[in-house]
Amino acid sequence: MAEYDYDLFVIGGGSGGVRAARVTGALGRKVAIAEEYRYGGTCVIRGCVPKKLFVYASHFSEAFEDAAGYGWSVGESSFDWPTLIANKDREIERLEGLYRKGLTSANVTLFDSRAVLVDAHTIELKATGERVTADKILIAVGGYANPHASLPGHELCITSNEAFHLETLPKAIVIAGGGYIAVEFANIFHGLGVDTTIIYRGKEILGRFDGDMRRGLHAAMEKKGIRILCQDVFAKIEKGDDGRLVAHTKNGEVLEADQVMLALGRDPNTEGLGLEAAGVAVDHKGAVTVDDYSRTNVENIYAVGDVTDRVQLTPVAIHEAMCFVETAFKNNPTKPDHHLIATAVFSQPEIGTVGLSEEDASKDHEELEVYRAEFRPMKHVLAGRDERTIMKIVVNALDRKVLGVHILGPEAGEMAQLLGIALKAGATKDDFDRTMAVHPTAAEELVTMYNPTYRIKDGKRV
Amino acid sequence: MAEYDYDLFVIGGGSGGVRAARVTGALGRKVAIAEEYRYGGTCVIRGCVPKKLFVYASHFSEAFEDAAGYGWSVGESSFDWPTLIANKDREIERLEGLYRKGLTSANVTLFDSRAVLVDAHTIELKATGERVTADKILIAVGGYANPHASLPGHELCITSNEAFHLETLPKAIVIAGGGYIAVEFANIFHGLGVDTTIIYRGKEILGRFDGDMRRGLHAAMEKKGIRILCQDVFAKIEKGDDGRLVAHTKNGEVLEADQVMLALGRDPNTEGLGLEAAGVAVDHKGAVTVDDYSRTNVENIYAVGDVTDRVQLTPVAIHEAMCFVETAFKNNPTKPDHHLIATAVFSQPEIGTVGLSEEDASKDHEELEVYRAEFRPMKHVLAGRDERTIMKIVVNALDRKVLGVHILGPEAGEMAQLLGIALKAGATKDDFDRTMAVHPTAAEELVTMYNPTYRIKDGKRV
Repeated sequence: MAEYDYDLFVIGGGSGGVRAARVTGALGRKVAIAEEYRYGGTCVIRGCVPKKLFVYASHFSEAFEDAAGYGWSVGESSFDWPTLIANKDREIERLEGLYRKGLTSANVTLFDSRAVLVDAHTIELKATGERVTADKILIAVGGYANPHASLPGHELCITSNEAFHLETLPKAIVIAGGGYIAVEFANIFHGLGVDTTIIYRGKEILGRFDGDMRRGLHAAMEKKGIRILCQDVFAKIEKGDDGRLVAHTKNGEVLEADQVMLALGRDPNTEGLGLEAAGVAVDHKGAVTVDDYSRTNVENIYAVGDVTDRVQLTPVAIHEAMCFVETAFKNNPTKPDHHLIATAVFSQPEIGTVGLSEEDASKDHEELEVYRAEFRPMKHVLAGRDERTIMKIVVNALDRKVLGVHILGPEAGEMAQLLGIALKAGATKDDFDRTMAVHPTAAEELVTMYNPTYRIKDGKRV
Repeated sequence: MAEYDYDLFVIGGGSGGVRAARVTGALGRKVAIAEEYRYGGTCVIRGCVPKKLFVYASHFSEAFEDAAGYGWSVGESSFDWPTLIANKDREIERLEGLYRKGLTSANVTLFDSRAVLVDAHTIELKATGERVTADKILIAVGGYANPHASLPGHELCITSNEAFHLETLPKAIVIAGGGYIAVEFANIFHGLGVDTTIIYRGKEILGRFDGDMRRGLHAAMEKKGIRILCQDVFAKIEKGDDGRLVAHTKNGEVLEADQVMLALGRDPNTEGLGLEAAGVAVDHKGAVTVDDYSRTNVENIYAVGDVTDRVQLTPVAIHEAMCFVETAFKNNPTKPDHHLIATAVFSQPEIGTVGLSEEDASKDHEELEVYRAEFRPMKHVLAGRDERTIMKIVVNALDRKVLGVHILGPEAGEMAQLLGIALKAGATKDDFDRTMAVHPTAAEELVTMYNPTYRIKDGKRV
């Protein structure tokens, strides 16, 4: 191994790459990492973290409204976008510093440079032209927002990247897409007072989620005043004489807005990475192909996180990174476990979900019991807010195993995390039934639904 | 059975009594219920529900403060207590109506009267003097706040009952007690702008909770500005010349306040109930003694809920009522399950807990692993709020079973509910470790603590 400069070279300083570098460095191995932009990656720099801060900011407008029913008179409120941006940037900078510190504490060498593969063991650092070698290489370069280059006027649009740094808050925005990024940003902008429209080619937002979540959130967002156009797409985007943007849709709608945001999926960041030179195979989308242990077709090169297009989530990338270290440096081959991943959509209300949707479960299971509750959360009652929480448990009727739990409502993300533990522990509906309620909470509804709302037999509701 | 007026007579229209009456009525049995005050009982009328509404109201003052860091300027706010009381009363009235409706829909006869036992099968309705007979009788009369009659000036004090109906919001309040009622009301009043002091005879508030929760909440409350005097008690309460109250403590403190509230525990509501006439045995505290099936020493008389002084919680009373119906009317003897009851304290921050505290677990277990995290929740960072969340997992080192989980932080109550399911399903620490994080949430901390913070062997931290 002495023939290489490093035991491990990690390309990409996001969640997966940083974790792998730090943990391997802490094992006493010689490790380097290269990042062309900022350490922390999509999650910390322009994803989960700043997004969640925006979500918090956007909640306040409803809090001010809700206060009246509880006896509060609130003076006029106003929102200053540059203050939010500055405070958010300060926090992101702090977190980036922590990431750098964690790496240097583990004796990892940091290169603030784009790195590309020259061959299976050689990396070129574009900032300096320097070439270094490594025994093992981990590709953790993540993904980027699809720019929809075929759309006339796409260059006038922003993606989530730019949304985190807009100089002024738009008065009106149109967001293309029906995935969680589109939905979360629509709620954020609406909560901050922006006239917000979503346009999505599919029949209903949030493609692979449970139908009740999709319809329920759609209804809640429309009730707030967010316009949602399904089964339509942009035809072209133009700049009007007044400098505003005009979006023309296939169905003939003409939407004026100050910003048009594209949230049309994310692509693997593999262009110009030298994968061909190193002999690393990619799939038709450009994602690095890996085996069950995150190993590419080249024996010493691995890949984790979004670039592999398995499950594009921060904790999954981190988990894959931890498994990679076990496999590659601790002589303990470990497959990432992608089963029963709980997730959240930080919409308003939130969605929290783990396991199978009713639709997916009914494909593979002879008979299901579905338990479903819909209610107004207690907090909304005095507030006079007419927003419903939906909770749903999908159970395999044959062995009472809980296959999926889906929640639309406040704090659904926190709930999903803990339901994830219950389902990982193999919880049955009987375990739910045997659990004492905590009163008054919203979550107690999940342990007090004793009779199925309906059943599904051979894919059909009975 | 035809010799009795009713198959079941329930004394007390609280959570347990109403549930038992409604479910038995729905079975086609002849059922009556008597309630001397309002249907819904402590929980709905003067407990959990109005308390939680007050908690929501008291949260807004911090929300207004936190908004600034997120870019919001909020005009001056003011709070009107009578508005809150009126809106709360309207909601309680609505809920009481639902309870009544549920009973009449199940063909239960309602008596708006105090009912006392004349013998083991006869009940006298005090409102009319009418006597009715029943095959089986369920005592579900609940408890009442201990008035601390031996305290000079106790008649000048209020309990939680009166706190729900004060005509004006006090400028200052002193609350005696260290249990969850004292703690919750202290946070409520403080959040509504009241100068608040707690006085408690014990060393630390919240007696049977995990030590980290007790100390952590104490510190958080003091940081907010709530004064907490431990190891002291009232000597006497006097009325000053200005009409305000003056509380003198054993340690020589003199506390002036507009209201003094006693939250010194709750006693079973059995006085004058005719238990002696019916031959029903009570313990030294006056609680009705029951066996594992909630049956008293008198064969046809059962008791559930707070009057039995087992676990004084609404869901427990309901659970006991459901088991009673199984046992007494469905020929399916069923013991209430009091194991692993998750609970919440709706303090600020909240406490959510299930299973054994570190202190209790270390008494019965040879070796424990304790996982502990303390962090500032993401929402507090931009808000500039210096309040810490504590999460703690207590694990049996021998079999990795999770014995207890304790959370101090926002939404801890909702979290406790779902952790209750995981623990009921027998979750081990390995199940926690195998669960993918949901990012960014607070709860993800519970699935990302891979190494014990410390161990406890034979009761000692090592």
